[in-house]
Amino acid sequence: MYRVDLNSDLGESFGNYTIGMDDQIIPLVTSANVACGYHASDPVVMAKTIATAKTAGVRVGAHPGFPDLMGFGRRNMAVSPAEAKAYVLYQLGALEAFCHVNGVKMQHVKPHGALYNMAAKDYALSRAICEAIKEFNPDLIVLGLYGGEMVRAAKDLGLRAAMEVFADRAYEEDGSLVNRRKEGAMITDEEEAISRVVRMIREQKVTAITGKDIPIQADSVCVHGDGAKALAFVAKIRETLAEEGIEICPLDEIV
Amino acid sequence: MYRVDLNSDLGESFGNYTIGMDDQIIPLVTSANVACGYHASDPVVMAKTIATAKTAGVRVGAHPGFPDLMGFGRRNMAVSPAEAKAYVLYQLGALEAFCHVNGVKMQHVKPHGALYNMAAKDYALSRAICEAIKEFNPDLIVLGLYGGEMVRAAKDLGLRAAMEVFADRAYEEDGSLVNRRKEGAMITDEEEAISRVVRMIREQKVTAITGKDIPIQADSVCVHGDGAKALAFVAKIRETLAEEGIEICPLDEIV
Amino acid sequence: MYRVDLNSDLGESFGNYTIGMDDQIIPLVTSANVACGYHASDPVVMAKTIATAKTAGVRVGAHPGFPDLMGFGRRNMAVSPAEAKAYVLYQLGALEAFCHVNGVKMQHVKPHGALYNMAAKDYALSRAICEAIKEFNPDLIVLGLYGGEMVRAAKDLGLRAAMEVFADRAYEEDGSLVNRRKEGAMITDEEEAISRVVRMIREQKVTAITGKDIPIQADSVCVHGDGAKALAFVAKIRETLAEEGIEICPLDEIV
Amino acid sequence: MYRVDLNSDLGESFGNYTIGMDDQIIPLVTSANVACGYHASDPVVMAKTIATAKTAGVRVGAHPGFPDLMGFGRRNMAVSPAEAKAYVLYQLGALEAFCHVNGVKMQHVKPHGALYNMAAKDYALSRAICEAIKEFNPDLIVLGLYGGEMVRAAKDLGLRAAMEVFADRAYEEDGSLVNRRKEGAMITDEEEAISRVVRMIREQKVTAITGKDIPIQADSVCVHGDGAKALAFVAKIRETLAEEGIEICPLDEIV
Repeated sequence: MYRVDLNSDLGESFGNYTIGMDDQIIPLVTSANVACGYHASDPVVMAKTIATAKTAGVRVGAHPGFPDLMGFGRRNMAVSPAEAKAYVLYQLGALEAFCHVNGVKMQHVKPHGALYNMAAKDYALSRAICEAIKEFNPDLIVLGLYGGEMVRAAKDLGLRAAMEVFADRAYEEDGSLVNRRKEGAMITDEEEAISRVVRMIREQKVTAITGKDIPIQADSVCVHGDGAKALAFVAKIRETLAEEGIEICPLDEIV
Repeated sequence: MYRVDLNSDLGESFGNYTIGMDDQIIPLVTSANVACGYHASDPVVMAKTIATAKTAGVRVGAHPGFPDLMGFGRRNMAVSPAEAKAYVLYQLGALEAFCHVNGVKMQHVKPHGALYNMAAKDYALSRAICEAIKEFNPDLIVLGLYGGEMVRAAKDLGLRAAMEVFADRAYEEDGSLVNRRKEGAMITDEEEAISRVVRMIREQKVTAITGKDIPIQADSVCVHGDGAKALAFVAKIRETLAEEGIEICPLDEIV
Repeated sequence: MYRVDLNSDLGESFGNYTIGMDDQIIPLVTSANVACGYHASDPVVMAKTIATAKTAGVRVGAHPGFPDLMGFGRRNMAVSPAEAKAYVLYQLGALEAFCHVNGVKMQHVKPHGALYNMAAKDYALSRAICEAIKEFNPDLIVLGLYGGEMVRAAKDLGLRAAMEVFADRAYEEDGSLVNRRKEGAMITDEEEAISRVVRMIREQKVTAITGKDIPIQADSVCVHGDGAKALAFVAKIRETLAEEGIEICPLDEIV
Repeated sequence: MYRVDLNSDLGESFGNYTIGMDDQIIPLVTSANVACGYHASDPVVMAKTIATAKTAGVRVGAHPGFPDLMGFGRRNMAVSPAEAKAYVLYQLGALEAFCHVNGVKMQHVKPHGALYNMAAKDYALSRAICEAIKEFNPDLIVLGLYGGEMVRAAKDLGLRAAMEVFADRAYEEDGSLVNRRKEGAMITDEEEAISRVVRMIREQKVTAITGKDIPIQADSVCVHGDGAKALAFVAKIRETLAEEGIEICPLDEIV
């Protein structure tokens, strides 16, 4: 029996600014990565997001990012490991407060944007982030890129690690994502994207941009909720997974 | 046997900016009010502050403030009760993360600056803040102004409330602090300031600016650590309290 | 011959966050109030907004606000007059840089949100804002609420003042806007809203919420561009004004 | 006749936070690099700093940095050239407002911290910054590291470029500063530091960390004002330069 989690970045609105169709994507996923007020979100948004996730029965994870609201946490910042550790701890605690008062158990942690990308390639940074996670709550699952330094550091520290794959992104032979600026980086054909996901789950393989098959592990598929088209795509993935006999269930039932 | 707590606002440095002589004031007080990253502080400072407080054996409380770093949380902001509740919850959670990983138990909550002053006069605001505290952790002590709305809301919600007094401030007849801009607002004579503190503790009385004696309750005395003179004053208070047979002990041994 | 300006708050997007349909509202108005990076906007958005306004031939004004991005500048903040003066000067300068490099002349200043509302009732605050404007550029027009302290301070300092009216808001007998929380505060019937605007322009009168006619001056009408419905409403206003023989032209051709 | 400018980073206080002994260092230098509210400073501080510089007759330059107050602009951020250009333009405009109302002419621009260091090695980034400067005011002098990309971009765009040297830093053979983490990076002996400065000015040479003499150009020496020791060092440099017959004068009398 095959199983996979669907995760999505949520709760990224801020003050008077709205991003994402959270109410619509939440019921379609099994794990919600909730922004914690650094790269996006604010306490009022966090309160609302956790309440919405709870109502929908969706598992909640922290989605900590860089203190760069203007850049939405998408720009690399040369923070030290000690700074990264403190920033992650701060954000975990802040989100946990909203989980706690809502009676929601935090399931996982997935760093956001540039922090995610930098950590995937930098063991010292990943280690600092994972130390924060472990000291805060050793039951948390670390959600990271297959083959990246983040999941390696998580395992080294005895944390559960889950691998996420991207339906709409091409892979290099080493398992890293093809840079968005390179041609062919995005898988724009929806049928192809979904077929790739199914194969990643069933065969633990994906065809890299070079044409070569590479091994991969798909504990979770990252999907988006920032528009009608994105939502339709998620519905389609859900449908196909059901047809293929792949059960969609939250991360903590998988790893 | 008389007992009193000494509290001080700490951990207010930010990034490259240093405020306060924390290392020197911490050993002189029994309760530290630790800034949580809104009006002051950042995660690196918070990590350091909690570690320092732990080493010194000083009790830790949260010192949440308005999201106004530029104004150091000292300017009234017309936030709604729902916003205030979410802001306090966020800051409590963030600080709790650092307490938790250091094995430190959070003892109390004292709102900062304009949030403290506004809450003292606004029951709805106080109630929202106290709801956040209660939902987060009903064992936390609320530290507020004697006779203010904050301690009233705390009691209404079944929270323990502690009253703080100020050695260097004059009082109006209704127990509120004399506005700093008014003449006579500050008690500048150190001997007089300390005598007033002793009387507030032993007799539960203080002479208001009008000359009339008013009732007051002194569970804790707020002291400052932002300069050599302030530190010397705290040492003097400690000495006098010892001479007067007044024991200095943390809040949770008092209320 | 009757003339009126149409103004709208624009350039309020921030980083990855988009607010307002600027490209569509800009061609429909004659004066754009451009956010300056405090309550909304960032330098990249400002560069784009000024370029768009220039292309459309729309006059540009500064729309300075409180340093409260989380509250979108809509919450009263107890800043001192000296702080307000410095904040406005900072924002005027920042926006002027983008005007200057685009060869655009800044036409006016309209404070945003809570700063606008507080200034309308507080002469000292208005005076500080107007001093900043005058020292920066005495040719700038101050756009404010009819009968408010802002336009009074502007006149006292010898600045040109223009009065703005709101199509969708009810008025108290003293000319102030009815609080949004009060019943009847919003004029929801579009025909009625437009009729009121025409009468404010032609007769310098409007019916207050009490039923009494009060005097008013309409140099400019504030319109919104934050949705398809808002845009349709602006188109309708333009049409009616044309039918009524009221010319729509920028502020500096009016005052 | 030899001439050199002394420059210092100033106006870096923020809200309730004070950094630097500005009042004391300002009279000792000829060019002040004034923070613009991104990595440090706020409008109230900027107003005060420009007024102080004016009174002392010291030339003023803009010191724009990354939007990273928590990191004091010292952490590399992967901003795009377009973002860098907009950020610099914003900060130039903001500071210019305070110069303008004080009747002070802005003399130069020196990027701060990580922006300075990144620009010194990245031509595209330097070019974007210099385009902002040129479009804003082509008379501004660009103050940069000798041999860096910043001064190259300035010259390519027809801007005046001035080279600054550091008294307390060792140089690599290519003219770049030795990384602070490397042994020998700091010149701790004051006599040696001053001798090196004199030789850089008189002979246009400095001994690199490898022992080899390399060419250098010293239009300006960067000095610090963040402590009593730093101030004493500046006084000593001034004294030695006078003895050596090297005139201290502002940048715009040199380049």
